Amino acid sequence: MTSNTALDWLRLPPIIPNEQMRQAALQRQAQLTKPPGALGRLEQIAVQLAALQDTLQPGADQVQISIFAADHGTAAENISAFPQVVTSEMIKNFAAGGAAINVLARALDAQLEIINLGTVHSTDTLTAVRHYHLGAGTANFLHSAAMSESQLAAALNAGRTSAEQARENKQQLLIAGEMGIGNTTSATALACLLLHAAPALLSGAGSGLDGNGIAHKISVIERALAFHRMHVHSPLEALRRVGGFEIAALTGAYIRGAQLGLPLLIDGFISSVAALAAEQICAGSSKWFIYAHKSSEAGHAHILKALNATPLLDLAMRLGEGSGAAVAVTLLRMACKLHNEMATFAAAQVSGKKQ
Amino acid sequence: MTSNTALDWLRLPPIIPNEQMRQAALQRQAQLTKPPGALGRLEQIAVQLAALQDTLQPGADQVQISIFAADHGTAAENISAFPQVVTSEMIKNFAAGGAAINVLARALDAQLEIINLGTVHSTDTLTAVRHYHLGAGTANFLHSAAMSESQLAAALNAGRTSAEQARENKQQLLIAGEMGIGNTTSATALACLLLHAAPALLSGAGSGLDGNGIAHKISVIERALAFHRMHVHSPLEALRRVGGFEIAALTGAYIRGAQLGLPLLIDGFISSVAALAAEQICAGSSKWFIYAHKSSEAGHAHILKALNATPLLDLAMRLGEGSGAAVAVTLLRMACKLHNEMATFAAAQVSGKKQ
Repeated sequence: MTSNTALDWLRLPPIIPNEQMRQAALQRQAQLTKPPGALGRLEQIAVQLAALQDTLQPGADQVQISIFAADHGTAAENISAFPQVVTSEMIKNFAAGGAAINVLARALDAQLEIINLGTVHSTDTLTAVRHYHLGAGTANFLHSAAMSESQLAAALNAGRTSAEQARENKQQLLIAGEMGIGNTTSATALACLLLHAAPALLSGAGSGLDGNGIAHKISVIERALAFHRMHVHSPLEALRRVGGFEIAALTGAYIRGAQLGLPLLIDGFISSVAALAAEQICAGSSKWFIYAHKSSEAGHAHILKALNATPLLDLAMRLGEGSGAAVAVTLLRMACKLHNEMATFAAAQVSGKKQ
Repeated sequence: MTSNTALDWLRLPPIIPNEQMRQAALQRQAQLTKPPGALGRLEQIAVQLAALQDTLQPGADQVQISIFAADHGTAAENISAFPQVVTSEMIKNFAAGGAAINVLARALDAQLEIINLGTVHSTDTLTAVRHYHLGAGTANFLHSAAMSESQLAAALNAGRTSAEQARENKQQLLIAGEMGIGNTTSATALACLLLHAAPALLSGAGSGLDGNGIAHKISVIERALAFHRMHVHSPLEALRRVGGFEIAALTGAYIRGAQLGLPLLIDGFISSVAALAAEQICAGSSKWFIYAHKSSEAGHAHILKALNATPLLDLAMRLGEGSGAAVAVTLLRMACKLHNEMATFAAAQVSGKKQ
């Protein structure tokens, strides 16, 4: 598993953010006509973006949103509130412009791409969708690894490609989002392996399970962990055995983004688990992560804590599709505009704090 | 104090939001292509705006931001981290377009108006500012009431005028913000009277006091309460005795907005205290309040609790100027666009939840 040359790129180091630019941005913030710190998180986010984008004039106007979709063999275990056909139906909805992320991408004037990594029901007629055909969903991880080594490599590379395109197109920010019936179960199982945590701690309602549904989901994940745990000696192997195509693609996008020096706005539970995998596979990647929101999915708080993350928003969202991240873009834009456009005490002839 | 006919309008009833429209908006949310509730607070805010704006297509595109500024006699007690001249200097900054609220208003394409109710230093040469000349700031409330009855009436009426203009100009939302060195002290004293609370519970750093500064501020407020408390038999009298011109103007704007059926986006600590006064003076006004953010000013959480408010954002902002509310406008816009533009399960041919 460690000798797959198609994955050598995962060992490249992430770029180190520019500390001098961060200091310069902090200095500028101190000169703006407001009490020091009065813009709170908006100051911090502008300073962070200045360091990441290596400029005193950070921005979030040019945004790429890449939505990775795939099916999960585990859906056969009845762990989702929605039928599996919804994955391909939602891909059609994405292509037609009717989903939440379409509305948000239009509002942001963001570049939206839809990627089908592999679904049970074909969406091949949709020309607006990029197709990878990695399989009719992953295998049911109760009986085998979710992915073969070549499937894992292809999924990670799909994410890599999106990050590289974003960089080529001079995007200032990348959102990688996901859709896939059953994928909170895969993400939870993966998080349990990455954090050595119990399924009961990290499992939630996903798209809408009731208490019995969650209990069943926990038992499925427990069986999966019993089956795979002894064979898992790396985060990459954990990803292959219990992850999903789209979760691996997110992981690849996050790692490559960090290697290219591209700020990455992390969405909710599943995106955060992929972000955790990215950091464990390629240490230092998380310096490029900005955490958009705290999801109402039960386990998200634990994942955020493991990432030492303080998200910007807490709106009880739990949709996926990169939707929470897309909403947070507006905060990044405001933060940058304030940083770039506010007058200084000197220029506006406003008196400073009493000595 | 209760026979001031210039204030008879305060007794007019607020409009009652349209409950049928709220139900219809809830029904629409249930049909959109997402798990029920998956957009969290964004769903709630769209439904609330639908009821307030009496339409199934709510919006927050047309926004008026009215910033009320004034000086406070209590500044003589050294209760602010900034010198009093900053009030008029910041009014000049507002007029020149360099302050945070200018940047935010431009980003939102909002209508921004600046109102000077009365400052120690003149800003009369600024034609972009509306001047009311109520006095060279309020009186020091340690020695007398902050305002005369006629000053209170004029300040409330200034807010009323802004709300009426917003309605005439078909604004979908009004933000009333404030600026005034010393005004967290006035707002805190007012909140203590309105809530029968101790100054130590509600006092905070304002624009940047240290621990000693806060302790001094608490002692000043305690002395003010000892001086005035026995004479306060109504929220209006509390406002007159320890409030400020701009706090009264905010109160008037909130009451009139509610009477006109105009959604009001409430900013931080001072705005929330004015909102509390508005609700106590004119019961039912708060049905028109949307709470933008939780400020890092210490007492804000208590004020929000008294208003039964759950704000949208928690970004550790504490600037005033309506800035937190302006940032939250972007969330309202996203919420409305999602509500108005997303496809339904039926139209997109997406399967619903399993039975």
